[in-house]
Formats: sequence, C-alpha cells, structure tokens
Amino acid sequence: MQKKRPVILITNDDGINSPGIRALVESVRDLGQVIVLAPDSPQSGMGHAITIGDPLRLDKVDVFPGIESWQCSGTPADCVKLARDKILHAKPDLCLSGINHGANHSINVIYSGTMSAAMEAAIEGVPSIGLSLLDYRYDADFAMAGKVAHELAQRMLAKQMPEHILLNVNIPKGPIADFKGMKICRQAYAKWAEEFDHRVDPRGKDYYWMTGKFVNMDKHPGTDVEALKDGYVSIVPIRIDFTDTKMKA
Amino acid sequence: MQKKRPVILITNDDGINSPGIRALVESVRDLGQVIVLAPDSPQSGMGHAITIGDPLRLDKVDVFPGIESWQCSGTPADCVKLARDKILHAKPDLCLSGINHGANHSINVIYSGTMSAAMEAAIEGVPSIGLSLLDYRYDADFAMAGKVAHELAQRMLAKQMPEHILLNVNIPKGPIADFKGMKICRQAYAKWAEEFDHRVDPRGKDYYWMTGKFVNMDKHPGTDVEALKDGYVSIVPIRIDFTDTKMKA
Repeated sequence: MQKKRPVILITNDDGINSPGIRALVESVRDLGQVIVLAPDSPQSGMGHAITIGDPLRLDKVDVFPGIESWQCSGTPADCVKLARDKILHAKPDLCLSGINHGANHSINVIYSGTMSAAMEAAIEGVPSIGLSLLDYRYDADFAMAGKVAHELAQRMLAKQMPEHILLNVNIPKGPIADFKGMKICRQAYAKWAEEFDHRVDPRGKDYYWMTGKFVNMDKHPGTDVEALKDGYVSIVPIRIDFTDTKMKA
Repeated sequence: MQKKRPVILITNDDGINSPGIRALVESVRDLGQVIVLAPDSPQSGMGHAITIGDPLRLDKVDVFPGIESWQCSGTPADCVKLARDKILHAKPDLCLSGINHGANHSINVIYSGTMSAAMEAAIEGVPSIGLSLLDYRYDADFAMAGKVAHELAQRMLAKQMPEHILLNVNIPKGPIADFKGMKICRQAYAKWAEEFDHRVDPRGKDYYWMTGKFVNMDKHPGTDVEALKDGYVSIVPIRIDFTDTKMKA
C-alpha cells in the first residue's frame, strides 16, 4: 500500500511573487503535496498582525506550475488560518514560511511576518519552519537556503517534533559551495537603535521614516548572531509560551 | 533635595480617544510625570507590527488636561519607538500600555497590540506593564483596572525589576467591590478555532470575515485563564527571549 504523501503548506511575508517563495516551493516539492497560500503583496514588519476589522480576499492563482496556489489580501498569520479553515480543511503535516529576503535572527523574530506565519502554525500544533536568507536583494542566490529547507523539511516530516515548537532558521549569504553546516542556537539579545528620519512634506507638515541600526548587545556564546557571523546556518527552536518562569511574586 | 519625578510613558492600541487610556492616565498621574503617545486610531490585532514602508505622522494634541500628549499614525510598537527617540530623548522609568477594552490573556499576548507596546519597551530595558480589562464595551467600568494599574505601577517604580521582563495583566469584569486580589500565573495554552465567515460582495466576488471561538486547551493549574475564571487579576511575567532551551539537536 502506498503511503499518503504529506501535505506541506507554504507561505511567506514578501508576497506570492517573490523569488524567495519560488525557491522554497522548488526545493521541497519532491517531499509531498505542496500547497501555497501567501499574501498578494509584501507584508514585511507586520509582526503577528491578524485582520479582524476588514474582510479578506482569497483568490486561486497560477503562479507555480503544477502546484495549487492561492493569494490572500491579509497578513502571513491570516494566510495560515485561512489555509487550514478554507483550503485544507485539516492540519497540514508541515508548514514552511519564507524564504525571506533578509535576516530574521535574534530579536527580529518579534517583528517578522515570516516568523509569525510559522508561529501561527505552531499554535495549531503543526510542525513549522521559518526560513530567512541574509541577503535583501531581489536576485539573491537561494541555492544554499533551498538545500537547507529540503534537509530540514525532510527531517521534520520523518520524526515526531515536540508540540508547539517551531524553528527560526537563518542562512548566511553566499554560494552553496560556502555551506559550513547548521548550529542549534539561542536567540541573541539585540535591538534596533532607532533614529527616525524627520522630513517636512510639500504642505509644511512633519513626517518621519523609521530607520535605525542593528545592535547586538549579547556577548555570550551560543547565539544565532554568532553562528551566522561564523558562516553557519543558525537554528533557534522557538516556543509559543512566553511566560518567564523564573519570576516570583 | 527633592527626588526627580519618574517619567511614565503611556500608550495603547485602542487609540488615544478610548476611555481605557483615559482611565489609565487618571489612575497613575499622581505617581510621576505622565506622557502619552498613542495611536490616532484603533490598532487591535496588530501584533508586533512596525511601520517600515510608510512615513509616520506625529502630532501634539490636547486630550488629557495637564498631560503632554501626542498622537501617531503608526502601530503601538511604533509609538514606543517614536516616544523614546523623538519626545523623551531618553528611556522612561516605566511604560504602561492599555487599559485595553477586552482580554489579552493566554495566547492573545501574540496578537495583541497592547502587549506589543509593552514588549517594545521591555526590549529597550524599560519596565513595562500591559493592562487589559475583560470587558469589550466602550462604557466599561475601569475602576478595578485603575486600582490595579496604580498599585502595580507604584510597586514597579519602587523596586528593581529583572531586565527585559514585562507583565501581562488582565482584570476581570465587574465593579471595584468585587476585587479579590492578584495572582502570578503562567500563560495558558489556548487558541482560536477560526471559522471564516464566507460572503459574496455586490459584484459577485468572494470575501471572508475572520471570526472564531476561543478554546482553552490547558487543563493544568496555574494559568491566567484559571485565575480570571476564579475572579482574580492575572499577572503573567513575559520574557522577550523566545528560545526553547529544552530542545536538542
């Protein structure tokens, strides 16, 4: 008897037309039945936003040959919710989010739409991985990231993961020949030192652009930022229970 | 020598004109120099969204007599970033977010704009509290929540908190006479069982409203959901490091 092919849900936050999601689809399509439901436009910096005050649009599209694909007007978290409820009518076996154009290591897990989709899947008890490449460019080389996606997806489909845990995976910039291996890390304590760029519009009114510099404040070993600096792929297991259990009354 | 009055930054996600933020300002204004910087419109469900692709507007307003107040076109997390960089030019001594019209216990910490503002402050190393009342109504009774806000703010200003920890505080619905006390809890594992409401617009196109039922899957003791059910105020200490340290390669 043939074993049922696993269902792999793919989404992202750069939008369904980004090269990153295309690279992800191509890298894992041999592992199961891939279904794509992704935002119809870029959603970077959306954090774990959900759409409650506006209706959502959901349209079938033909973007990846031979792959059932849908685009949605909502956020990455909306996409995961809609996929389960309206398209799959069941939990997928795996959810992959990405491959993001740009890093989501350290504190960026909090701001990242890519990671919010993976987190939404974990809340549902679906094993999930968020993947990000340390290269913001549209024409970035996704070969190493695709190899990592394939290897991790295969492993996660084969073994039982702890429930409600997801992986935050960041891949260094560079050709596939530079691949040095993967390291399990902890989230570095880092922050954005914001400096808002103040401007005045043609009608004389003030406005501000968010800008800022990434600052790693974490000098202890074992962080994702350190692993990436050393040329490794970083894997941070993330939990959805944010309780600090050390604190007492 | 007179001690300098502590600076208390207040924000929320229901917008600067909501009764909840007014109740918060009134309840703690005797404890220090209160400064308000809040969204100019409701931002519920924004999670930890930040505004990177659009400019931000920031305007001085006269909403609370005798209190310096600003409204911003951005998200709750944007408000905290802008306040530190453009208004205070320094860290405040305390950040309070709320009082939210509606619960933010358990898994809702992930979706909540109220909590994202408190989390943003914690990333900056500012002690912070997010406060939510289990009453969605515009004319809810904020007396008990105000009492809780005052007591916790006073305690946090008096003692050294662990760095990068924030409190998720939920207050039961009811008159101040029903106050039973506060309990330190852990975040309940719960989720929203989404059922999208499918409709067809006047032009024949499909659209969906997110709806859904809150389901508490956590039967173990010590959760915030349990404390609230028993009539207590729940306090969950939240950390900003999401790493699951139990997981090994």
